[in-house]
Amino acid sequence: MRNYMRNTLTIFAASLLLGWFSNGSYATTYEANQKVAESLNSKAQQSDLAYKIAESLTVEIGPRLAGSAEDLLAVDWATAKLQSLGFDKVYKEPVVVPVWQRGSASARVVAPYPQPLVLTALGGSVATPEKGLTANIVRFDNLNALKHANKKNVEGKIVFIDQKTERFKTGAGYGKTVGARVNGAVEAAKLGAVAIVIRSIGTDSDRMPHTGMMRYDDDVTKIPAAALSAPDADQLTAMLARSQDVSIQLTLTPKDLGTMTTYNVIGEFTGATKPDEIVLLGAHLDSWDEGTGAIDDASGVAIVTAAAKLIGELPERPARTIRVVLFAAEEIGMIGGKAYVEQHKAELSKHYIAAESDFGAGPIYRADLRVAPAVFSQAQQLLAPLAHADVEQGDNNARGGSEVSLLPAHGVPVASLRQDGRDYFDYHHTPNDTLDKIDPAALAQNVAVYAQFAYLMAQSSLELRPIK
Amino acid sequence: MRNYMRNTLTIFAASLLLGWFSNGSYATTYEANQKVAESLNSKAQQSDLAYKIAESLTVEIGPRLAGSAEDLLAVDWATAKLQSLGFDKVYKEPVVVPVWQRGSASARVVAPYPQPLVLTALGGSVATPEKGLTANIVRFDNLNALKHANKKNVEGKIVFIDQKTERFKTGAGYGKTVGARVNGAVEAAKLGAVAIVIRSIGTDSDRMPHTGMMRYDDDVTKIPAAALSAPDADQLTAMLARSQDVSIQLTLTPKDLGTMTTYNVIGEFTGATKPDEIVLLGAHLDSWDEGTGAIDDASGVAIVTAAAKLIGELPERPARTIRVVLFAAEEIGMIGGKAYVEQHKAELSKHYIAAESDFGAGPIYRADLRVAPAVFSQAQQLLAPLAHADVEQGDNNARGGSEVSLLPAHGVPVASLRQDGRDYFDYHHTPNDTLDKIDPAALAQNVAVYAQFAYLMAQSSLELRPIK
Repeated sequence: MRNYMRNTLTIFAASLLLGWFSNGSYATTYEANQKVAESLNSKAQQSDLAYKIAESLTVEIGPRLAGSAEDLLAVDWATAKLQSLGFDKVYKEPVVVPVWQRGSASARVVAPYPQPLVLTALGGSVATPEKGLTANIVRFDNLNALKHANKKNVEGKIVFIDQKTERFKTGAGYGKTVGARVNGAVEAAKLGAVAIVIRSIGTDSDRMPHTGMMRYDDDVTKIPAAALSAPDADQLTAMLARSQDVSIQLTLTPKDLGTMTTYNVIGEFTGATKPDEIVLLGAHLDSWDEGTGAIDDASGVAIVTAAAKLIGELPERPARTIRVVLFAAEEIGMIGGKAYVEQHKAELSKHYIAAESDFGAGPIYRADLRVAPAVFSQAQQLLAPLAHADVEQGDNNARGGSEVSLLPAHGVPVASLRQDGRDYFDYHHTPNDTLDKIDPAALAQNVAVYAQFAYLMAQSSLELRPIK
Repeated sequence: MRNYMRNTLTIFAASLLLGWFSNGSYATTYEANQKVAESLNSKAQQSDLAYKIAESLTVEIGPRLAGSAEDLLAVDWATAKLQSLGFDKVYKEPVVVPVWQRGSASARVVAPYPQPLVLTALGGSVATPEKGLTANIVRFDNLNALKHANKKNVEGKIVFIDQKTERFKTGAGYGKTVGARVNGAVEAAKLGAVAIVIRSIGTDSDRMPHTGMMRYDDDVTKIPAAALSAPDADQLTAMLARSQDVSIQLTLTPKDLGTMTTYNVIGEFTGATKPDEIVLLGAHLDSWDEGTGAIDDASGVAIVTAAAKLIGELPERPARTIRVVLFAAEEIGMIGGKAYVEQHKAELSKHYIAAESDFGAGPIYRADLRVAPAVFSQAQQLLAPLAHADVEQGDNNARGGSEVSLLPAHGVPVASLRQDGRDYFDYHHTPNDTLDKIDPAALAQNVAVYAQFAYLMAQSSLELRPIK
């Protein structure tokens, strides 16, 4: 409520300011827009549309790994869903993706304390030999320690990186540890390791490993890579405290099956007076394969789709086009996002602003922007109604999130509508990413924020470029 | 603290009372015992012995399903541990157990929304045909609804019981739902079902199924039985809301491999003046196979072992023998407990009192007894020092827990030292039953309570029989 009152005063001040330097009709339009935003907020907070969309995607399609048969079912689902919701235009654009299948993952401690371990292959990992491989493990506190290790301590061993991911509202712990997942295999292989297992990049202590993409270098041996659950990482560390000779047997059977064409799915409500100018709302349609992709990213799909739909239900279309882009293949390297940039290069100058929802279903608490510094405070004033949904104003350093983070390099203004992600990395990329992890009320709050944001931006008369 | 003060007054009143109706030396002994109990409390609360024991068992042995090779390793571990802790006597007694191996469990929705399901076989389940079985599911709210179902709605189908287990401090939710696990297969088979899948008997919403024992009737067809994780049960229910024809494919490969001899492992500190009279502290050594059996029941093993050890470290042995019994094969039907009763039948009359720790590592909040009603309040007064560990006095209706619950039928007084079990059924019988779920401080509090309880009972001059 404190934010709400502060922002109400800001609205009032902004009205005076805008009234002073622009004409009377501008001020009238400004107030009218604010009223519409307020009505979108009320409507969104009471709507279960987003929850129904998230439920539909997770129940009717479930897991939809990019490059799988289910990925194509999800494309059909998305196309039909946007059409059934009455978007003015629905279309899809091809994206070529690698086809990687997880197969099975098993591991066990061979000595000194024989017992099974719980792990999963990292996305893109090569397989072990068919009958597995067995070697002693060598533990490192983090990726940096591995980088500085002596080759003779690593050669022929299975590298084990055991860094805990800290819990933050912003999710900032992830950025500090994910390097081990992405680059660990290359660094370990450079020192002659035969495989790598990492402590899952997650904030939970569930016996459930977190998958996620890793990469290889063409000129470094490709070694199998897997993530252990947190309790399994603890278990290995406890064993190492008792004996330096801890050997494990690891069997991974992923397959690389070439490439496949999937699609970005796009739905638009066409702008009334500036139809070629675009307010882009993004999310990604693909998911990892072990959960049902509820918080990553059925929630994002649901939030941006429902927000656009609420704007589409208004008596009049706003000035600019609202474009919902459900990106393909985010998880395996933002391939859909890169394809979008390529395919829409000529049109990127007409992208007024873009935002993406890909951080679960926690409530939005803050709105960051990346716009021309000269209009930053006016843009904030325009967005003052977000306070109705308990969103505070942020800074002008937004990255834009996932695919949309590719756009500022092309001059496109972006917003980061920042969600409370305290529990996001408990479930991220695990079998536990299921519908029950979505709080319907928080999801509705997200819709309220995206709807207001998109509407106000679609109506704005500010020139947001050149961005900072 | 409120309890502590109330009980301190009770101690004072009890001292006066006992001083009044007994002789002076009794009162002196009484006060001396209370002081020793107080010192045991302080020592236990500061000791990490129990945590080290739990760590040793879960790390060095890990899962130890009754009838497995690891079960025998656990017997050797327990024998060596009790010996190394200086128990006066350590011995083991044979227990014949069935050998059941889990094998693998997989399931998927075939139609209308193809996708994998996460489940695990219930303990004792028969296998499906090698290539699995496929059938429509029929959902019931609970076991009772199944019992009253019409055969024509069940025949040829896979029964799905979807009852949620509620969370209580006492764990009382479990008793209301576990019938579906134990008796569901028999009831389903009576109506012609080809298999049964139940919502896991657990309070969590993790995508992790809870195993546990089920039973068959010799005169009813044995059908495969499995538990779905909570999110998977939700998923099936959401599908059934969209279509009555939901078919799943189920493959379970457990094996029944005859019988094996394992052991109850027993350690004693011999009583100084009444060595043939026994204060029994129980826990079970076996565990389910998917976790490392930390809260079920390495914590119990650690609590009772550490409590006895603290008493063993006193300058003088108490009057009665403290007997720690680490039971075999609790999980698969209290087989070790039944064997103990059989093997010690002649000696049961010399069991002064018994208690068992088998409800995780949450703090003890209350002490219930089952003793002669005539001495109940005096027994409570004797146990007043438990208030030092924040334990309140309970009633005279204790069951005694797990194996020890078999003893009142033979006239043996028992206590239930009741733990806060609010999160116990989040992890119970899942891969998530790992060492990180044990709070070392709460574990130490348990030791403090068991040590005081055992010491005070070993010194007591009350006649606790005949029990209520």
